[in-house]
Amino acid sequence: MPDAVLALLRDGLGVRSAPGEPGPLEAISLAEPRLEADLFRPVIGHDNVHADPESRIRHTRGKSTPDLLRLRAREASDAPDLVLLPGSHDEVLELLSLCSDRRIAVVPFGGGTSVVGGLEPSAGGFDGLVALDLRRLDALVALDEESWLATLEPGLRGPQAEELLGARGYTVGHFPQSFEYATLGGFAAARSSGQASAGYGRFDELVLGLQVAAPAGTLSLGRAPKSAAGPDLRQLILGSEGAFGVITSLTVQVRPVPERRTYEGWRFSSFVEGIAAMRALAQGGPRPTVLRLSDEVETAMNLARPGEIGGSDGGGCLAIVGYEGAVDDVEARRAGAERVLLSAGGVAVPDAGEAWARDRYRGPYLRDALLDAGALVETLETVTFWSSVPGLYEAVSTALRDSLTAQGTPPAILCHVSHVYPTGASLYFTVACAEADDPLAQWHAAKTAASDAILAGGGSISHHHGVGRDHVPWYEREVGSLGVGVLRAVKAQLDPAGILNPGVLIPLP
Amino acid sequence: MPDAVLALLRDGLGVRSAPGEPGPLEAISLAEPRLEADLFRPVIGHDNVHADPESRIRHTRGKSTPDLLRLRAREASDAPDLVLLPGSHDEVLELLSLCSDRRIAVVPFGGGTSVVGGLEPSAGGFDGLVALDLRRLDALVALDEESWLATLEPGLRGPQAEELLGARGYTVGHFPQSFEYATLGGFAAARSSGQASAGYGRFDELVLGLQVAAPAGTLSLGRAPKSAAGPDLRQLILGSEGAFGVITSLTVQVRPVPERRTYEGWRFSSFVEGIAAMRALAQGGPRPTVLRLSDEVETAMNLARPGEIGGSDGGGCLAIVGYEGAVDDVEARRAGAERVLLSAGGVAVPDAGEAWARDRYRGPYLRDALLDAGALVETLETVTFWSSVPGLYEAVSTALRDSLTAQGTPPAILCHVSHVYPTGASLYFTVACAEADDPLAQWHAAKTAASDAILAGGGSISHHHGVGRDHVPWYEREVGSLGVGVLRAVKAQLDPAGILNPGVLIPLP
Repeated sequence: MPDAVLALLRDGLGVRSAPGEPGPLEAISLAEPRLEADLFRPVIGHDNVHADPESRIRHTRGKSTPDLLRLRAREASDAPDLVLLPGSHDEVLELLSLCSDRRIAVVPFGGGTSVVGGLEPSAGGFDGLVALDLRRLDALVALDEESWLATLEPGLRGPQAEELLGARGYTVGHFPQSFEYATLGGFAAARSSGQASAGYGRFDELVLGLQVAAPAGTLSLGRAPKSAAGPDLRQLILGSEGAFGVITSLTVQVRPVPERRTYEGWRFSSFVEGIAAMRALAQGGPRPTVLRLSDEVETAMNLARPGEIGGSDGGGCLAIVGYEGAVDDVEARRAGAERVLLSAGGVAVPDAGEAWARDRYRGPYLRDALLDAGALVETLETVTFWSSVPGLYEAVSTALRDSLTAQGTPPAILCHVSHVYPTGASLYFTVACAEADDPLAQWHAAKTAASDAILAGGGSISHHHGVGRDHVPWYEREVGSLGVGVLRAVKAQLDPAGILNPGVLIPLP
Repeated sequence: MPDAVLALLRDGLGVRSAPGEPGPLEAISLAEPRLEADLFRPVIGHDNVHADPESRIRHTRGKSTPDLLRLRAREASDAPDLVLLPGSHDEVLELLSLCSDRRIAVVPFGGGTSVVGGLEPSAGGFDGLVALDLRRLDALVALDEESWLATLEPGLRGPQAEELLGARGYTVGHFPQSFEYATLGGFAAARSSGQASAGYGRFDELVLGLQVAAPAGTLSLGRAPKSAAGPDLRQLILGSEGAFGVITSLTVQVRPVPERRTYEGWRFSSFVEGIAAMRALAQGGPRPTVLRLSDEVETAMNLARPGEIGGSDGGGCLAIVGYEGAVDDVEARRAGAERVLLSAGGVAVPDAGEAWARDRYRGPYLRDALLDAGALVETLETVTFWSSVPGLYEAVSTALRDSLTAQGTPPAILCHVSHVYPTGASLYFTVACAEADDPLAQWHAAKTAASDAILAGGGSISHHHGVGRDHVPWYEREVGSLGVGVLRAVKAQLDPAGILNPGVLIPLP
């Protein structure tokens, strides 16, 4: 942790004590498992049922700051009784059938990187809880080079999938911050959006086909890029967060590995000026592959370049603009976008683009270090149409600042535009403040205020983190009672016993 | 009708007799309406309930060849008892509530251009059938120029919407062949795809927000371009074909009216060579706004230029490649695409592009004239991934040819690639042959064979016509029994009495 950051935490935010790093896993005590491993061994084999404490703890909840705080406090009451590792679609089907019969709740588990309580089902009314870890489903099943399509299994982590495809000359092009751990099944189930989604598309746009194992049977969806044969049922599974079924195979669009990758930094005098430049590129083009813009505070903190936190900055707002593709295509888009950026008031910043690319997955590790130092750090995000972006930015910032200041812990609030569309953009907030005596209650109050502000300001409760359990009350307001009714009807059809991730996504009755 | 075409019909297809043009509407006799107009007048006003025969006949079925043949045979047994013209979302809600209580089936009616039986509900078990014509919902409600968003009412026909937006300098850019009659609500309900969808996107990609009146209440969907807050419920309404609810308002992406529109013709030596060129542009770019390719037969028939049917052609396969947008953008894309087209073996064809643009909506009128001349003419379409395109083209062509030849009416079969995506393309077939004694049975057999071939060949039963009633058996195979179960569950939630378009989209129990 650089001295400048420690000084900022101490002098700027009043961080006083460092509760220290998390203890060893063995220090966490778990309840006795309520389920016998032998119940599942005939289905998936002896070695694929894990009952040991470490496995159970590693499958407890996700990676939100409250999740980390609870584990640091040695609280693992949501631990699954068992961790199951099925090896095929049919085994998943059989496990779901067994769990339906025995009233055992199931949490589908990919990379475990949810930050919204997506791995924290309400298993209260059930006779047990199992984590269904899909890591053994890790094959590249087929590659159709003519159609730019790969059929992949859901347990593949981002780097594994890229390695398998890269050996054949292809890439999915999906690089969320969770890339190193998150799985393809998780990307799909949570409607993930990557850092290069401006160019490659969101994951929900890249998924062309899905096989789903549900307690009620198998769904095989997607015979074509687009179809007018009824509603797009793929879009009902994408974002279903394990509540409708378990994705056991995905057919996704791939592209040839880009010949060239170029990332640039551009500075704007203000967030407003930078947003206008982002909008010009998103609407009129040409569209870069990566496009993001930090506000003044985030730029000053240099969070766009985690390796240089605490270093000097030139003021204003830093944008990262990246291009990936064939050399001609990259050059044509770069030249076109440069004209737009210059005419919007942008000034090129040497090296900032490459620095961002080098450190692009470091954010979550930084958070761990800040927690170690006694700071409370968390992120949240939203998305809205362009005309609502400035108001939403103000409203969410104000809600966070007011809530935390009233609690005696005035925060630093950083924000960036993380993704752009022709009609709107997402806003990604990072909040840092001194940890109060009850940091869970402290953050819960701030997050509640921010979520209310998001809904009131016309935003969606999530652009890419998902609903999980944390966002359910606001999601319910977003889709309305009839929308919730539709979700419940779909769930009742696919999961009649309600075993899949109860309480996640869909409000409990 | 040009002499050359008449000669082709006579000599090439054996068309012998011309049953003549359709008779006057008055010659069609209707059953007495089973419903009293006074039931609905308190809700929507005296003048907005139409019981006259002409209104009823004009709201009977759609515009498929079987639909036209049945009206020509003066068969209008599916006529609604009444035509209702609500003037607001709340009036639609009230009508749906009333019809649910009274067990009256409802067919939502936009432009009446369905060619798949989408306007032909099974009203057998109900106490009556009303057509809900949305033409009075025809306002441009709001235009958000910053976000490129327009909120429009569903009853606006294509040209009406373009005129309202054009006066403000904007366009939706959605131009299906049905453009002149079809409505925005219909575009959304049927997942329409337009002739310029390569550039502007399909209609389902342009819809950002929806308000839906269902018997169970109101759904308001879409707070942002994209969201990770659960499944995308908009995609459940898009393609729902009036079976889930009535769309009463749409928020769609608009763009500034293009500064320039340029359409070019390109000739390839074979369909295979042309398809490779389409794929190169769809995958590697730059993407034209319009991109279509006729096979050898369609090129020879010159159907790509309806005004020049029967004129000379230069052999091979004709592609239409169009660009719309800002001058710089059009020029950059045109220059880039030209390089791709040339290297793929394309040869520029002067004037062909402009001729296509001039005649782009003439296809359906031509079909009327051919029917007048005693020919049976109909179209069907599908979509699949690139690697399946050649096999699907052969399989569907063969199925149509074999079926109609076995019936003693060997057909001419024309095809074009109508839309392209990075991972696949659609195929649009036109079939012409002599009319048999029972043309409905004749076409039913051919269409059944083609639909079976589509499913067996890996295609979707529709790329842009929809499911309607005609495609239900194949749609059921496409989504599987569990998929049908999901659709039924959603319908039961939104439309508990099952009054909305019964038998359309979802198989009857």
